[in-house]
Amino acid sequence: MSMSATAVAHPNIAFIKYWGNKDQKLRIPMNGSISMTLEGLETRTKVAFYPEMERDQLTIQGKPIYGEGLERVSRFLERVRRWSGNSEYARVTSQSNFPMGSGIASSASAFAALSLAASTAAGLSFTERELSRLARTGSGSASRSIPGGFVEWQAGTEHENSYAFSIAGPEHWELVDLVVVISTQPKETGSTEGHKLAPTSPLQDARVSDASRRLNLCRSAILERDFEALARIVEQDSNMMHAVMMTSQPPLFYWRPATVRMIRIVKKWRKKGLPVCSTIDAGPNVHVICLQEHSKTLKKRLLDIPDVEDVYTTYPGGGAYLLCRSSSGESEG
Amino acid sequence: MSMSATAVAHPNIAFIKYWGNKDQKLRIPMNGSISMTLEGLETRTKVAFYPEMERDQLTIQGKPIYGEGLERVSRFLERVRRWSGNSEYARVTSQSNFPMGSGIASSASAFAALSLAASTAAGLSFTERELSRLARTGSGSASRSIPGGFVEWQAGTEHENSYAFSIAGPEHWELVDLVVVISTQPKETGSTEGHKLAPTSPLQDARVSDASRRLNLCRSAILERDFEALARIVEQDSNMMHAVMMTSQPPLFYWRPATVRMIRIVKKWRKKGLPVCSTIDAGPNVHVICLQEHSKTLKKRLLDIPDVEDVYTTYPGGGAYLLCRSSSGESEG
Repeated sequence: MSMSATAVAHPNIAFIKYWGNKDQKLRIPMNGSISMTLEGLETRTKVAFYPEMERDQLTIQGKPIYGEGLERVSRFLERVRRWSGNSEYARVTSQSNFPMGSGIASSASAFAALSLAASTAAGLSFTERELSRLARTGSGSASRSIPGGFVEWQAGTEHENSYAFSIAGPEHWELVDLVVVISTQPKETGSTEGHKLAPTSPLQDARVSDASRRLNLCRSAILERDFEALARIVEQDSNMMHAVMMTSQPPLFYWRPATVRMIRIVKKWRKKGLPVCSTIDAGPNVHVICLQEHSKTLKKRLLDIPDVEDVYTTYPGGGAYLLCRSSSGESEG
Repeated sequence: MSMSATAVAHPNIAFIKYWGNKDQKLRIPMNGSISMTLEGLETRTKVAFYPEMERDQLTIQGKPIYGEGLERVSRFLERVRRWSGNSEYARVTSQSNFPMGSGIASSASAFAALSLAASTAAGLSFTERELSRLARTGSGSASRSIPGGFVEWQAGTEHENSYAFSIAGPEHWELVDLVVVISTQPKETGSTEGHKLAPTSPLQDARVSDASRRLNLCRSAILERDFEALARIVEQDSNMMHAVMMTSQPPLFYWRPATVRMIRIVKKWRKKGLPVCSTIDAGPNVHVICLQEHSKTLKKRLLDIPDVEDVYTTYPGGGAYLLCRSSSGESEG
């Protein structure tokens, strides 16, 4: 008899970013981070353990995955097997409704959904905190895609105390993240490799030691729904992460001409009084954060800008959730 | 009887940049810097002192200048008057063969030429070191436009020990700086105001305390004519300065879409084996550093890139020099 489970998780956009690890293997971050979970984008992942399988299998967007992609998932499932005592191999099927590996945190939603699906299928009943820790070991930012709404990941010092929790529910503030897709080409350097380069930048230590100031400002701005304060700290934090990336050795330069065009336009709009700001993850795409009342107008204006391929409208969303669970493995998630 | 003098100076491109002052008034910099003096671009400045004048007069590019521009030059001439004992006001006429205030260091060549012309017309015979110190009080980077070739400005701690000197003559290395003009619009925030914002960036201290490492790497790369080493440190240093600018409060964001397009293209060319790198001062324009043997081909390729308005070819040049000197004030420089 096989066990299966299907889970759904959303990506998240970091307002205070994660870059660099204290512990590379366990992904214990150098600094805490704050994010918003993004309803409207999702990854749905089914995990089914089968006694007769001889190795794990992985399918993403309908395509079988081998090599490093499969190994990363296998290493992750190894943890689940160790904790559950279940030694069976699994078939993992994952589907996202947005492009992967291009700076929209696909690994966050993917490992969050995988954590919930795999632990459930393995017979474990994890709390949110346990799931967040597990997700973190697959992809750091995935720890933040387990809780919903506005989320803080406390850096911690070891596996036990490094996890994310909600600081306000999705209904707390009607923010919108307009995800401006500039390029869907996969990025040249993935985040896992990128994090390893963080300590080679002469600016990383300063970025890390300043993090509690930024976390405090961002947390207060969210709790007080103070858009102008949020905008200032979100843009500064994004520039600080990209500063470290650009000055690491070798440098990581994720920005494209259209990225800078967006940064400048958003600044100009805010100067004219519109509550809007921008932030950029490890890729060229720009997340334009605004209030719901302006999101439709802004989306139209964004789509008129050259090199903008698409704009996704996303909202503060709920945490990872289970879609279905079966002990036969026959039902399709 | 009036005294006049006409001097010529070149701008310079900083390989290790100056950003932020220990002493704002004397422009004692937070960190040392290294530059190349740029033959091909120049400012020619005539200073004539007249006993009958009631205030200083300034003409730049044929236009009379009033307000802050005139006051800055007047404050500078005040120093010269104090040192020389000459209390006459001056007529200053300045002409550059390149656009001003757009990130090509026009204030560097302008204050270097002004230092030499004003001190000479006032009857002072300054050494190169004295001129460099004087120029620094007008515009920090002007201290580096007094000597020729490859120049280091030692930060120092006070007026006496903060000056620039040549570390290698112009003939030392056949580098070319292709100045890619992206926009000739004057920048929104001038450098003088910008320097004051440097301490508000959480990254400035790290940038400053890492400066001696960068200066050592850059100086060695120049002395050993090691282009690859120069390229790495020049690009890192430029990104570090812009990192501080972007993260200061309020942030200074000088890059435009075309700036990033250039950064990326230059990186790609170097990856393919071409000795070329880029660096950006406080403006949108990009300085593309290459070897003389490739400069013609590269210039053509640069001119084909969208949004590139013009490309100036510049070489390591000599220091500031006197064009003429007269005790009647009748001869035109």
